[in-house]
Amino acid sequence: MAETMKAVVMHGPRDQRMEERPMPKPAAGELLVKVEHVGICGSDMHFLEEGRLGNWVVEKPLVLGHESAGEVVELGPGVEGFAVGDKVTLEPGVPCGECFPCRAGHYNLCSKMSFMAIPDERDGVFLEYVAHPAKMAYKLPENVGTLEGALCEPLCVGLYAAQKSGAWLGQSALIFGSGCIGLVTMLALKSAGVHDVTVVDVIGKRLEKAKELGATAVIRGDQVDAVQAALAATEGRGFPLVFECAGHPAASLQATKTVAANGVVVLVGMAADPELKLDVATLSAKEARVETIFRYRNLYPTAVSAVAGGLPLAKIASHIFPFKDLVAGMLYNMDHKDEVIKGVVSFV
Amino acid sequence: MAETMKAVVMHGPRDQRMEERPMPKPAAGELLVKVEHVGICGSDMHFLEEGRLGNWVVEKPLVLGHESAGEVVELGPGVEGFAVGDKVTLEPGVPCGECFPCRAGHYNLCSKMSFMAIPDERDGVFLEYVAHPAKMAYKLPENVGTLEGALCEPLCVGLYAAQKSGAWLGQSALIFGSGCIGLVTMLALKSAGVHDVTVVDVIGKRLEKAKELGATAVIRGDQVDAVQAALAATEGRGFPLVFECAGHPAASLQATKTVAANGVVVLVGMAADPELKLDVATLSAKEARVETIFRYRNLYPTAVSAVAGGLPLAKIASHIFPFKDLVAGMLYNMDHKDEVIKGVVSFV
Amino acid sequence: MAETMKAVVMHGPRDQRMEERPMPKPAAGELLVKVEHVGICGSDMHFLEEGRLGNWVVEKPLVLGHESAGEVVELGPGVEGFAVGDKVTLEPGVPCGECFPCRAGHYNLCSKMSFMAIPDERDGVFLEYVAHPAKMAYKLPENVGTLEGALCEPLCVGLYAAQKSGAWLGQSALIFGSGCIGLVTMLALKSAGVHDVTVVDVIGKRLEKAKELGATAVIRGDQVDAVQAALAATEGRGFPLVFECAGHPAASLQATKTVAANGVVVLVGMAADPELKLDVATLSAKEARVETIFRYRNLYPTAVSAVAGGLPLAKIASHIFPFKDLVAGMLYNMDHKDEVIKGVVSFV
Amino acid sequence: MAETMKAVVMHGPRDQRMEERPMPKPAAGELLVKVEHVGICGSDMHFLEEGRLGNWVVEKPLVLGHESAGEVVELGPGVEGFAVGDKVTLEPGVPCGECFPCRAGHYNLCSKMSFMAIPDERDGVFLEYVAHPAKMAYKLPENVGTLEGALCEPLCVGLYAAQKSGAWLGQSALIFGSGCIGLVTMLALKSAGVHDVTVVDVIGKRLEKAKELGATAVIRGDQVDAVQAALAATEGRGFPLVFECAGHPAASLQATKTVAANGVVVLVGMAADPELKLDVATLSAKEARVETIFRYRNLYPTAVSAVAGGLPLAKIASHIFPFKDLVAGMLYNMDHKDEVIKGVVSFV
Repeated sequence: MAETMKAVVMHGPRDQRMEERPMPKPAAGELLVKVEHVGICGSDMHFLEEGRLGNWVVEKPLVLGHESAGEVVELGPGVEGFAVGDKVTLEPGVPCGECFPCRAGHYNLCSKMSFMAIPDERDGVFLEYVAHPAKMAYKLPENVGTLEGALCEPLCVGLYAAQKSGAWLGQSALIFGSGCIGLVTMLALKSAGVHDVTVVDVIGKRLEKAKELGATAVIRGDQVDAVQAALAATEGRGFPLVFECAGHPAASLQATKTVAANGVVVLVGMAADPELKLDVATLSAKEARVETIFRYRNLYPTAVSAVAGGLPLAKIASHIFPFKDLVAGMLYNMDHKDEVIKGVVSFV
Repeated sequence: MAETMKAVVMHGPRDQRMEERPMPKPAAGELLVKVEHVGICGSDMHFLEEGRLGNWVVEKPLVLGHESAGEVVELGPGVEGFAVGDKVTLEPGVPCGECFPCRAGHYNLCSKMSFMAIPDERDGVFLEYVAHPAKMAYKLPENVGTLEGALCEPLCVGLYAAQKSGAWLGQSALIFGSGCIGLVTMLALKSAGVHDVTVVDVIGKRLEKAKELGATAVIRGDQVDAVQAALAATEGRGFPLVFECAGHPAASLQATKTVAANGVVVLVGMAADPELKLDVATLSAKEARVETIFRYRNLYPTAVSAVAGGLPLAKIASHIFPFKDLVAGMLYNMDHKDEVIKGVVSFV
Repeated sequence: MAETMKAVVMHGPRDQRMEERPMPKPAAGELLVKVEHVGICGSDMHFLEEGRLGNWVVEKPLVLGHESAGEVVELGPGVEGFAVGDKVTLEPGVPCGECFPCRAGHYNLCSKMSFMAIPDERDGVFLEYVAHPAKMAYKLPENVGTLEGALCEPLCVGLYAAQKSGAWLGQSALIFGSGCIGLVTMLALKSAGVHDVTVVDVIGKRLEKAKELGATAVIRGDQVDAVQAALAATEGRGFPLVFECAGHPAASLQATKTVAANGVVVLVGMAADPELKLDVATLSAKEARVETIFRYRNLYPTAVSAVAGGLPLAKIASHIFPFKDLVAGMLYNMDHKDEVIKGVVSFV
Repeated sequence: MAETMKAVVMHGPRDQRMEERPMPKPAAGELLVKVEHVGICGSDMHFLEEGRLGNWVVEKPLVLGHESAGEVVELGPGVEGFAVGDKVTLEPGVPCGECFPCRAGHYNLCSKMSFMAIPDERDGVFLEYVAHPAKMAYKLPENVGTLEGALCEPLCVGLYAAQKSGAWLGQSALIFGSGCIGLVTMLALKSAGVHDVTVVDVIGKRLEKAKELGATAVIRGDQVDAVQAALAATEGRGFPLVFECAGHPAASLQATKTVAANGVVVLVGMAADPELKLDVATLSAKEARVETIFRYRNLYPTAVSAVAGGLPLAKIASHIFPFKDLVAGMLYNMDHKDEVIKGVVSFV
């Protein structure tokens, strides 16, 4: 094993640099993984562009990237159930396992969470090798590649949104936003038997992707247009399942106007403004509820199983960048947001 | 039986008149009930003051009042399970029993609902006798009087709020608003084993009532003050159960700032503005959900049983008006809102 | 319209007769439907063979058959939302809509249920025309035929079993019994994203059908063999979802030995003996629960939607009998149970 | 601190001996607790009498006792949130925090559980001092003594039974068995607003205790008598909530005959026979479910809070033994089972 490896390190806004770092050693309970694919998340782009995301500020050098899969190259002491050569996807957040939220199964709300690419938590995976707890690694079966393995991370968000909605066979859904998160939400819903999915976006290219991945109908227009079209399509009743995946303040408001009686609006996207207007009168008249999600929990096995069962996850990747071009690639991506639906970094 | 009875009929804003109406006859499946007590709801006050409530407009004469209990004086054809002399409380909404929401058990969302004191649905109970379907009547046991029976209606709202919240033994709750609905929500919570209840209001007299009925703590101040005090009281963690019962836009916003991780905010009060700001960033970071309720369903038996078991419902009644003084009484109430926590009309 | 129609009437054990009956007239709220397909249920066979089923005894002439679909030929007074020529499937149980179970949405537990082909409730549909409440009829879209429409009835049982189990994307399931109910349960699970389904039966022909319809694995053998094989396939952990669809006492017992920690066993099949042994020690050590179902509720729209979306329901029909041969066909079926997986009567 | 302490060690059936053991030292994350009260559980009695319990066999010396509370006398490295002098109750099972059940919040099903007084897991607390992970310790408020603290362990079983049942305000419950577990289940139910609780037992003394603690009604007789009485009391409808806390095979069977439509039977007691007969025909006709519990999870804070709020837990203790008399006391208890409802060992 070489003594160093390459890592892309963020030093400030629009400032990522390819550097040499010492090769990590797996501690007890850890795997050493040679990274093969890493998805580029909107949060990576946001950190790089603004130097911050919500209350998190990048004040020290930070490696971005948290959607990864690769090959096990070494086992730390005491690791069982894995072998060198296994392909694995890595869950980026490492919870403490001891606090009250952890013990209640809500480990995504762990008070001592250590999540990849979050300042003061742990570095991300825009690098060649990573040591990660085996308990947060999941083996990929033969028919799931590491590109799909990396994309299991956003898929977990879609699965969690679907799970929180209580989606059930035969219901119909409306999704605001046809970017990566809107698309994985649609894929999760369709896998769970929710076949009738309508997707709203302003960008035609994204809607084409939604159609390619199986959207029943698409609505091109802004959020107000979407309300009209959505209500018209349901004889005024609205949709039992509504997902806000656009991260746009207007989308949250309009989403609440399209929900059916006894329905649910899941707010998945994160808008810039912390306070958002919702149509509470409509929610109350419909007795609808609003769910939020914070990342996901206990869903990697479901994601891997769904992909193994045929969920076409690889198709959401619109652009593949080689790792050596990552620094330039993300700047390109930053300046061509409408073009790139989902970028993935390849190390192989 | 006399051929006529007295009824108070609303003809327009601030215009109610005591009139003679024909004595009703119970149809098949109906009970004829001599009304003994009727609670005055905020919606009655609102209709009378403004001539409307949300989208409902009083364009034809309408009898207000929908929180009632009394004595059975005659059975319509085919009625079983009731006898003349039974004391009963009447559920004011009569659902169709056949539409999809009804068949799914969501009869409060019935598409053909006929609810007392709603324009174009059915008259209310500010009158001496009412014929009502036996299926929407509930017998009162010996230790529950008709004043309490009438107040089972708002209690159902509190019970439904508690039920939707998933409140469970030993949790702590924060309630915005110490009027009738805030108080019945507190009583419902305490009955379900949620003993640690903090109540927020700006009016000292209401908070005294909350203390009298068992509030663990009260916060006197506006909603922003309440957030500070509530967070301080929980070492910054917030409350797992938050109820907005004030019907004030600021309360909805501030309520969302006080919720704990994995918690719930139930929006019970109805604000004048249909679109309200919520702190979605906090909700998402906490993975909290927002529930709404539209009236209630399947809860009258629970309400009667809870009162029979000792829930001190009668104590929320701060003013009793004799029926003959109802017209003047409601005008008085309208002009002394801070003084009257809950008014009840007595016919006995 | 003719004044009479043909009906097959059961007079006693193994005694059904083709007779003339007056043409029914649709009452208010009813549809008159020309029957096109009727599935033959195990309960029909049981009534015909034994003259009884559990506590129900056929003491008066009774028309059997309750899985039906056909064409609307006349609308009774007040019917909306249907037109002559519509193809519909009929939900066989007509609940009262007023009792407590009905109002709570549990209409399958209605205390005044009137269900087709149940003594003292209502006649079944082994006849040419039937008048049925429009509220219990569901329109079939163009791509769903009346054979599939008729089979929506057993599919609702499978859907309800899946729903009660809380089945969720990516879980694995074990089904005891590969007859009609085992197969529709499998189809329901697969539609809801439960792709990994293992089916147990003693009859090879039934397991071939299960494979054809998408079973991941089949186990041929008795229930004790099944436990060994099932545990071996899961490294001793067992299955999170177990369904007993064989109606065999040993299957209930063995099913409880195959459940995983935190899992569920759904008892769908009805055994002859009311009291059955379960492995309560295993259930407790696994903290598993046992669910039962009584028919189904609120699921016809889901069934129709699932079939329209591609669920291959027609394939479970192994034998089609013309109506004119129904009397002989059921006797044949009775004597060749292993051969007939699912018989359907055709009127077209 | 002394270098040794006294411990009661079980060496074989009916063979416990008071011995000297080295004083434990708290490791990182552990508290050293001076034990003040320990409840004697039926499982302690069973181990001592038979040398085994189910598949667990006592082959090496074992300290029994797992229901304990005491005073913190030393903090191990890294412990936060506790201080010397704190009174605490100790949750006896220490889960790994890393396996799948743990991460899903089902830590009672942890595959590497280390539970007090279980062979090959960890010693119990029939001793003067114990070192225990701080994460499994809960501070007692001023108004909760260590006798009650010790009894929080069985109370958690009652709370879990109540929680699994979905008990809700105003429902009625039937409990088979009025020993310690039946009584804590009743107390848990009453705290959650289930006031109408009927208790069945054959021993009059136990039923007196149930009455003292607030049972609405008691039925003295065997399980078959109980069914008749229970059905008679509910006009044949049965109870929505039924709890089997007797650990008697006949109780499980009869319990399933007393459940109401849409109800639940929770099997809490452990019978000697792993396979038990249940009335599956009644369960199916009622669409009732059967829940099991394995110990409890995430409930100590609820237990402490409920006791602080007034749940009269101390009253279930019928006999207090000083620690020095423990060996003789348990033999006495073993030979007078009908007399001792709940024994507690006192160290103070």
